[in-house]
Amino acid sequence: MYDFDFHNPTKIIFGLDAEKSIGSVVEQAGHRKVLLVYGSQSVQKSGLLDRVKKKLDRKNISYVDFGGVVSNPVLSHTRKGVELAKAEKVDAILAVGGGSVLDEGKAIAVGALADEDVWQFFIGQEVKAALPIYTVLTLAATGSEMNGNSVVTNEETKQKYNIASPLVYPKVSILNPELTCTVPADYSAYGAVDAIAHVIEAYFTKSPGTRLADRLVETIIKTVISSQNIISKEPGNYDARAEFMWTATLALNGLTPCGVGECSFPNHMIEHSLSAIYNIAHGAGLAIVMPAWMRWYSKHNTEQFERFADKVFGVKGAEAGINALEVWFKEIGAPTRLQDAGISADDIDMIAENGTGLAKLWGIDAIYTKEVIAEILRLAV
Amino acid sequence: MYDFDFHNPTKIIFGLDAEKSIGSVVEQAGHRKVLLVYGSQSVQKSGLLDRVKKKLDRKNISYVDFGGVVSNPVLSHTRKGVELAKAEKVDAILAVGGGSVLDEGKAIAVGALADEDVWQFFIGQEVKAALPIYTVLTLAATGSEMNGNSVVTNEETKQKYNIASPLVYPKVSILNPELTCTVPADYSAYGAVDAIAHVIEAYFTKSPGTRLADRLVETIIKTVISSQNIISKEPGNYDARAEFMWTATLALNGLTPCGVGECSFPNHMIEHSLSAIYNIAHGAGLAIVMPAWMRWYSKHNTEQFERFADKVFGVKGAEAGINALEVWFKEIGAPTRLQDAGISADDIDMIAENGTGLAKLWGIDAIYTKEVIAEILRLAV
Repeated sequence: MYDFDFHNPTKIIFGLDAEKSIGSVVEQAGHRKVLLVYGSQSVQKSGLLDRVKKKLDRKNISYVDFGGVVSNPVLSHTRKGVELAKAEKVDAILAVGGGSVLDEGKAIAVGALADEDVWQFFIGQEVKAALPIYTVLTLAATGSEMNGNSVVTNEETKQKYNIASPLVYPKVSILNPELTCTVPADYSAYGAVDAIAHVIEAYFTKSPGTRLADRLVETIIKTVISSQNIISKEPGNYDARAEFMWTATLALNGLTPCGVGECSFPNHMIEHSLSAIYNIAHGAGLAIVMPAWMRWYSKHNTEQFERFADKVFGVKGAEAGINALEVWFKEIGAPTRLQDAGISADDIDMIAENGTGLAKLWGIDAIYTKEVIAEILRLAV
Repeated sequence: MYDFDFHNPTKIIFGLDAEKSIGSVVEQAGHRKVLLVYGSQSVQKSGLLDRVKKKLDRKNISYVDFGGVVSNPVLSHTRKGVELAKAEKVDAILAVGGGSVLDEGKAIAVGALADEDVWQFFIGQEVKAALPIYTVLTLAATGSEMNGNSVVTNEETKQKYNIASPLVYPKVSILNPELTCTVPADYSAYGAVDAIAHVIEAYFTKSPGTRLADRLVETIIKTVISSQNIISKEPGNYDARAEFMWTATLALNGLTPCGVGECSFPNHMIEHSLSAIYNIAHGAGLAIVMPAWMRWYSKHNTEQFERFADKVFGVKGAEAGINALEVWFKEIGAPTRLQDAGISADDIDMIAENGTGLAKLWGIDAIYTKEVIAEILRLAV
């Protein structure tokens, strides 16, 4: 077992109508004016945004509206948020939405206290300060509600990069599973793929021999599958949505990689190119990349792939486990080949070229050269 | 899934020689004078205490020695620590030792900022303030390094009661598995029993249907068993000690009961009477109580006991699972009957009478009457 630090200070308030407490939460923390970050129609249509505003009103907390965050949030919009946060001198960020809204909210929190352009923090500059962040989550997938990550796309350069800093852990995240009961079938499926992707990267790329980490990952994958199987048939099943929501949070809150030593995130690295270029959903891209990467990588760590096959799907052999995962992705309605997402095999070289940027930034470019990325992508044709 | 709040702000620094950082940790938090709480010989013999002091010296942090904490820490000694902390005006507690040392350190942290006698907080008074707590752990078992609990025995009244407060979560806990490599075989076994007991209580007494919680508990129990089986044969095996140490922390850091709703701690309730009266090790008492309680309780929740048998031991039927656990307790050298700990069956009524006090305090006295506690204890003869 390798050395590690673990520190996750985010408070989770989980349950039916949990967003009712948002006014008290922000008030007790001593904030008087927040930037209210959200997407577009769904939080307005559902009435959630109004409910949140009423709770803030009741505690005399003022707010500045900043809607319009898109899926795969973009740098240009993030910069507008930073300007607004500075101009309005807000003292906290309140993000209401899914992972994209939370991620952009975190980036704004960093940019609002910096003199530099916010993109600098995505290309290597260390975060020194950030406004306190509060979230009300409406889509379970990214784990952003309980971690220090923020992913934003620079539309000009087609770079989908991330900030990783302890300063952007939300202070409090509110998770009401009922808010996710209306998430459409495709986005539910993408969320399931995303949560599995979050734990699978370290599971396969770490050194062998950490049984606890293996078992925790298998627990998370099995629970994602069992709850998503219920959600596919009964989208409004509260208990399944709840179990899925909390499982997705634990999938990327720092717990599963404790003690596993060095590991890498090649599936995320390759997928970021797909969603940066084609603006497809992150989970959809991962469902395409993962089986291909697993087939390419399984020769490096066959025993762990055999374990995965056995423990998660009860089948024998590395290839059988990968096949079972791919079949399950198809069953829940996720694409598993480039063409399923309308991406031509002719683009593979161009995608691979894009991928080398992140490979360099994450220090895995010695293994993941342009040729290797292309080789993996050809397995997804 | 039931509503819950989760907030565990303790930072864990885990690894070989991790205690080297203690000076910087205390300095960076801005403390200048700490009460150094420890037990007796082992931390002095091993040289750990001196190493910790040197690290404090190097950062010009002064410390007041307060040794002599005993296993099953007692109120009279805790009160002395409170007096000393007040007289010396320390601004933090640094506990170096096992769960007993940490628990007494937490109680001192509470008493030092209170006008009332510290025992008041064990019999129901709410904790309003506590000195910041830092720990260097030398024995994996109680989970005190990452939770808000403190258990102390009032020797006069034979009451082994607890404080539960978010204010006594350690700020930072340092876990170096190597420090546990010299823990004797019996105390290693008691630690394993304790960790299993921590997760088993909610697992069996909660409502059915939370798959994630079930799987997390099974993961923890299986890892306790697999690592303890290695430790039994190779006490100095770093990886097994490391995996055991982190698993024991996760067993009582608030993670496993998330969303399971109401649950109770009857095994701990009954055991507290055993160690309060006979001063036996907590884990030893639990190994005696658990199989008896499981046999008594299994009729209430047979399906979950069948699941336990299947998932943890791969055997069929509730009774077979309980037997397998009891056999394993014996294998690792833990007592499983009252007589194994030198306790006479004639004392059962007296023990049961003692148990009713905690049953009342924990609000489970409607089920756990004196007669029921005695009935359970008779299954441990």
